[in-house]
Amino acid sequence: MKLIKPLLLAGAVASSPAALMAQEVAVAVPTDSVFILNSLLFLVGGVLVFWMAAGFAMLEAGLVQSKNVTMQLTKNIALFSLAAVLYYLIGYNLMYPLGNWAIDGVLSGVFGPGVLEAVGIDASGADDYSYAATGSDFFFQLMFAAATASIVSGTLAERIKLWPFLFFTIILVAIIYPLQASWKWGGGFLDQAGFLDFAGSTVVHSVGGWAALTGAILLGPRLGKYKNGKVFPIVGSNLTLATLGTFILWMGWFGFNGGSQLAMGSIGDVADISRIFSNTNAAAAGGAVVALLLTQLLYKKPDLTMILNGALAGLVSITAEPLTPTLGSATLIGAVGGVIVVFAVPMLDKLKIDDVVGAIPVHLLSGIWGTIAVVFTNADASLGTQLYGIIVVGIFTVVTSAVVWYLIKVTVGIRVGEEEEITGLDITELGMEAYPEFSHK
Amino acid sequence: MKLIKPLLLAGAVASSPAALMAQEVAVAVPTDSVFILNSLLFLVGGVLVFWMAAGFAMLEAGLVQSKNVTMQLTKNIALFSLAAVLYYLIGYNLMYPLGNWAIDGVLSGVFGPGVLEAVGIDASGADDYSYAATGSDFFFQLMFAAATASIVSGTLAERIKLWPFLFFTIILVAIIYPLQASWKWGGGFLDQAGFLDFAGSTVVHSVGGWAALTGAILLGPRLGKYKNGKVFPIVGSNLTLATLGTFILWMGWFGFNGGSQLAMGSIGDVADISRIFSNTNAAAAGGAVVALLLTQLLYKKPDLTMILNGALAGLVSITAEPLTPTLGSATLIGAVGGVIVVFAVPMLDKLKIDDVVGAIPVHLLSGIWGTIAVVFTNADASLGTQLYGIIVVGIFTVVTSAVVWYLIKVTVGIRVGEEEEITGLDITELGMEAYPEFSHK
Amino acid sequence: MKLIKPLLLAGAVASSPAALMAQEVAVAVPTDSVFILNSLLFLVGGVLVFWMAAGFAMLEAGLVQSKNVTMQLTKNIALFSLAAVLYYLIGYNLMYPLGNWAIDGVLSGVFGPGVLEAVGIDASGADDYSYAATGSDFFFQLMFAAATASIVSGTLAERIKLWPFLFFTIILVAIIYPLQASWKWGGGFLDQAGFLDFAGSTVVHSVGGWAALTGAILLGPRLGKYKNGKVFPIVGSNLTLATLGTFILWMGWFGFNGGSQLAMGSIGDVADISRIFSNTNAAAAGGAVVALLLTQLLYKKPDLTMILNGALAGLVSITAEPLTPTLGSATLIGAVGGVIVVFAVPMLDKLKIDDVVGAIPVHLLSGIWGTIAVVFTNADASLGTQLYGIIVVGIFTVVTSAVVWYLIKVTVGIRVGEEEEITGLDITELGMEAYPEFSHK
Repeated sequence: MKLIKPLLLAGAVASSPAALMAQEVAVAVPTDSVFILNSLLFLVGGVLVFWMAAGFAMLEAGLVQSKNVTMQLTKNIALFSLAAVLYYLIGYNLMYPLGNWAIDGVLSGVFGPGVLEAVGIDASGADDYSYAATGSDFFFQLMFAAATASIVSGTLAERIKLWPFLFFTIILVAIIYPLQASWKWGGGFLDQAGFLDFAGSTVVHSVGGWAALTGAILLGPRLGKYKNGKVFPIVGSNLTLATLGTFILWMGWFGFNGGSQLAMGSIGDVADISRIFSNTNAAAAGGAVVALLLTQLLYKKPDLTMILNGALAGLVSITAEPLTPTLGSATLIGAVGGVIVVFAVPMLDKLKIDDVVGAIPVHLLSGIWGTIAVVFTNADASLGTQLYGIIVVGIFTVVTSAVVWYLIKVTVGIRVGEEEEITGLDITELGMEAYPEFSHK
Repeated sequence: MKLIKPLLLAGAVASSPAALMAQEVAVAVPTDSVFILNSLLFLVGGVLVFWMAAGFAMLEAGLVQSKNVTMQLTKNIALFSLAAVLYYLIGYNLMYPLGNWAIDGVLSGVFGPGVLEAVGIDASGADDYSYAATGSDFFFQLMFAAATASIVSGTLAERIKLWPFLFFTIILVAIIYPLQASWKWGGGFLDQAGFLDFAGSTVVHSVGGWAALTGAILLGPRLGKYKNGKVFPIVGSNLTLATLGTFILWMGWFGFNGGSQLAMGSIGDVADISRIFSNTNAAAAGGAVVALLLTQLLYKKPDLTMILNGALAGLVSITAEPLTPTLGSATLIGAVGGVIVVFAVPMLDKLKIDDVVGAIPVHLLSGIWGTIAVVFTNADASLGTQLYGIIVVGIFTVVTSAVVWYLIKVTVGIRVGEEEEITGLDITELGMEAYPEFSHK
Repeated sequence: MKLIKPLLLAGAVASSPAALMAQEVAVAVPTDSVFILNSLLFLVGGVLVFWMAAGFAMLEAGLVQSKNVTMQLTKNIALFSLAAVLYYLIGYNLMYPLGNWAIDGVLSGVFGPGVLEAVGIDASGADDYSYAATGSDFFFQLMFAAATASIVSGTLAERIKLWPFLFFTIILVAIIYPLQASWKWGGGFLDQAGFLDFAGSTVVHSVGGWAALTGAILLGPRLGKYKNGKVFPIVGSNLTLATLGTFILWMGWFGFNGGSQLAMGSIGDVADISRIFSNTNAAAAGGAVVALLLTQLLYKKPDLTMILNGALAGLVSITAEPLTPTLGSATLIGAVGGVIVVFAVPMLDKLKIDDVVGAIPVHLLSGIWGTIAVVFTNADASLGTQLYGIIVVGIFTVVTSAVVWYLIKVTVGIRVGEEEEITGLDITELGMEAYPEFSHK
C-alpha cells in the first residue's frame, strides 16, 4: 500500500485506449465518482479484512486442544476489540499523525513517522475530496493492525495467560505496528529507500511473525511437546474449523491485497485490482498444491494441516507484490511458500520452538520470502533494499517485542501454571468449556 | 433509514470542495452512476444482512444444548425462508403499499402506512430512474424483516414447538414488523413526529426483542432452570459456533447500518457510509471490551458468552444513530450496551424470564438504550420524541405479539411436553440428531 | 452468462427516463465508469463464488460420517487449488482460446470453441477498454469451473480414493467443463441454436451432476447402505456444519447468478442484477419451504437435510433464468426444485445409486428442471432447444466422464478397500482424524 496513488483525471485519460475506442463517450470518470469508488474499495476491502479476524479465530480454535478452545476464542475476539479501541486512540495517529504529535518533531527519521497526513487528508487536516473518505481509510487501516495482532495469538496458544497476552496486543497495535508501518506506508525512510511491500508481507505478516517468535522463545514450549529429544505432536481438536478458518482467510485476502491498490477510480486501477485478485488466488492455490504433493512424497500421506498452512503461506508470499507477477509467477511464488511450510514446521520442532498453529512458517518465513520475491517480478525492486527493509523491521520488532514480553514476564508472569496447563485453560482460567457436553477419549 | 435521500446533482456540487480542487474535471457523478451506486449499496448491504441469518443460526446452535441443535437450525432456515415468501406476498406491500391496499385508505394515520411508494418507485408506481432499482430496495428491506424474526428464535429455544413458532414468525414478518416499520421508515406518524432511528435499534431490534420477551413470558422457562429460588445455568454446547455466529453478525452489521444510508452516489454519502462503518465497528468493540473487563472485575473470570453478547449489544446500541457520533462516542455508546448485557442477564434470571441466548438484553434493552442515545450526538433528536417512539412501538409490538402468542397457546399450544423437553427436541420432534456420532457426558 | 453484453453508451441513453427526469444532469455513465463497474461486478461476484468452495466443504464435512471428514476437507481444498492451477493452464484457454489453439482450427464446431476471445479481449488479443478487465473475467470464470468440480466430491464421498478423485477433477476442470461451456458461453453451436442458460443450470450444475452420477454408478454404493433390498441410512455427523454450508452456498449464489449479468455499468444492468438477487433468494426460499412442508406431510416430521437440499435445489432451478421470472414465478420455480429433492432422494436409493450429500437431485435433476423452466418466463426460449442443450451436454459429459472414470478404475483403481472403508478414510488413507479427542457412540 502506497500512501497516495496518482489519480487518472480527465485530461490524463483523454488519449487512453478507452477514449480512443469510444470517441463519442470520451468522458473519463468524474472526480466525485473517483472519490466514491476509492472509498468503496476501502469499505469492501475492510469488511473482507475484518472477516479474517473470524478466520484466525476458527483456524486457531480448530488447531488447539479442546480444553483450550474457549480461551483461544476469548483471546481472538478480545484482541480484535482492543485493537479497534487502541488503534483509534493511539495507533492511527502515530501512523498518520497530522503533525500533532510531539514524537513527530522530536524523533522524525527512524523513530518518527515520515509523513504528516492520513490518506484522504491534506497537511492542514482537511479532507481531500479528490481521493477517498478518511473514514474508509481508517476502517481499512484498522483491520490491518488487528490482523497483525491476530497472527501472534495462534503461536502462543495453550500456555499463555489471557491478560499478559492482551497487554502485549495493546502495545503491538498501539505502538510497534504503526511505528514501523509508518516507515513504509507512512512514506518514511524505508519507503524513501525504495523498499517495496505492496500489502504487507513484511509490514504486517513478518511483524506478527517476529512478535510471535519472540514470545514463543520467552514462553517456552507446551508441556510434553519435546521430551527426551523426541517431538510429541499435539493434534488439533477440530479440522473442520481449521479448514473453515483457512477458507475465510483466503477470502479475506482478496480485500487485504486488492484493497491495498488504494484506488479503484480508473480503468488502470480496477485492471490492477483484477490482476491482484487473480494472483492472490493463484498463489494460495500454488501453496496448497505443493503442500499436498510434498507431504504425499515425503510422508506417503497428504497432510491436511500442511495443505491449509500451504495455502496461507502462498497468500503471505504474494502479499509483498501481488500486482506485477504473471499468473504463472504468482503460482510459483505461492508454491515456494508451500515448500517453506512443509520444511519449516519440523525444523522449528528441532529448535524446540513450539508454534501451535504454524504461524511462524506461514507469516514470518513466507513473509520474508515474499518480500524477497518482489525482485523477480518488479523491476523497481532491489534485493539489497528488500533485505534492508526485512532486517530493519525484524530487528525493531524483535527488540521491542522482547522488551515488552520480558517486562511482562518478570512482573505479572506470562505462563499459566503446570497444573492449569495440563487441566486446560478453559476450566482453570475461564471456568467455561467450549464443548461441555461431549465426552473425551 | 430514511425513505428518500436528497441526491447531490451536478448543480448542487458545482461549488463543492471537490469541484474547486479539480477545476478541470468538475463533473459531478452523472445520474446513471448515482442510480447504479445506490442500487449497488442495497445489493452489497443486502447480501451482508442476509449473511446475518447464518450468524443467528450459528450463534443459537452454539448456545443451545446439543439435544436441541437440529431444531434450532431448522427453525432458523425455515423462518428465513418463510420470511422471504411472506414479506414478498404481504409485508413489503404493507410497508410501501403504492396506494393499492384498502387498509391504506381506511386506516391511514396510526394503523396505516404513511406513504404510498417504495423507494425507487414514484406515486404512480413507475420506477424512479434517478434513485435506485426497486429490486435492490426490496432485497435490502426483505433482509431486515427476516432479521427481526431471527431475533425471536434464540430466546424461545429448547422448549417451543416448531410450527407454532413458525406461525408467529409469519405474522411478525407479514404484519407486525412492516406495519410499525412504515410509521418510521414509510414516512408515517413517528417519522413526522421527528422520531429518529437510523437503521433500526427500535424498528428492528426492539421489535424482535419485545416479541421475544412476550413469547418468553407466555412460554415459561425451561424445566430445571429455576428451582427453589436458585438459578441453574444451562450452558451452550458449542462456543466455537457461538463465536463464529457473533463474527458473522458483526460483519453483516456493516451492511445493516451502512446500507441504511440508502445512497452512495455522492461524496457526502460515501463519506457518511465510511463513518458508519467505523462507528459500527467501534461500538461493537466497545461493548466487547466492557463485557471483558466487567466480567473480570465482577466474577474474576472473563466470560466469553458475555463478551460475545457485549459485542452484539454494542452493535444494537449504535444502530439508531451510527452516523453522527465521533469514534469515541460510538465506542462509549457501544460500551454501555456491554454494561447492559452484563447486568441484565442475571436480572432477567431473577425475574425467571428464561432467555436462552440473551437476545432480550442485546436486542431489546440495548435497542432502547441506542434509541435514547441518539439525543447525545444528533442535535435533531429530542428525548421526548425518542421515548415516544420507543413506547409506541413497544406497546404495539407487545400487544399484537401477546394476542398472537395467546391465540396459538390456547389453540394448538406452543410448548412441547415435559418428556420431549427433557429428551430433547431433536429426537422427539424431528427424529434427527445434529451430532449423532458423538457420545455425551 | 452471455459472452458480450451490449453496453449502454451515452448516446443510447440520451432519451432514457433518467435523462428525461433530470435534464440538467443528463450525463450517462462515462465509459471508464462502465469498465470499472463491470469489472467490480466480476470481482465481487467472483469472491462470492469463491466462498461457495467453503460452502461445499462445510456441507460435505457435515453430511459425511466423522471418520471421513478429514478426507472430505482435503478433497475440497485440494480440488479447488488444482482447479485454480489447471483452469489457468488449460481450461480458460480452451474456453476462450484467442485463436492460439490448434484444436480451434481443426475441430471448430461441435468439438471446438465457437469464439476466439475472452470477454474484455478483442480478436487481436488486445484489451477492450469499453468492457471490463480481463483479470476480473478470468477470476470470475475460474470460480465457476471450480464450483463444477466441487459438485462431484460430495456424491462420491466416503469410498473414493483421494488421488483418482483429484485426477478426475483435473480432467473435468481442464477439458470437459470448458469445452462444453464454450458451446454456450463461448458463443458456440448451442448458443447459436438459441439454447438459454443464464448462469449455468446446465453448463455448471448438470455437468457436475452428470459427472457425479457417472462416478457413483462406476464406484458403487457404500458398504452396508443397501442390503437385502433395504436401505440403511447413513446419517451425517454434523448438521450445524451442513447448515452453515448451505447458508454459505446461498450467499455465494448471489454472486453466481448476479455476476452472470456480466455488466453493471448502466441503469438497465443494475436493475437486472437487482431482480436476479431477489429472484435467486425467492427460489431458494421456495425450495426450502416446500421441502419443509412436504417432509412434514409425508413423514410427519420436517427433515433438516431435505430443507437444506431444498434450498440448494431452488437455487439451481433458478440459475438457468434468474432474470425474467417475477418474484412469484421464481418462488414457484424454486419450489419445484424442493419437490424434486424430496422425491428423488428416495428414488435414487431404490436404484441403489448412493449419493452421499444429495448432489444428484440438487445439481443434476434441478439443473435439468431449471433449464426447462426457462420456457415459462422467457419468450425467447424454445422447449425443443432447451431439451437439445440438456441432452447434448448430458451425453457429452456422461461419455467423457465415463471414459475417464473407467480408465482410472482399470489402471489405479478408484475405490478404497473394504477394511479402509469400514475403519474410515481419515485414519487409513490420511492418518489424521478430524475430531481426534471426541469419543464416539
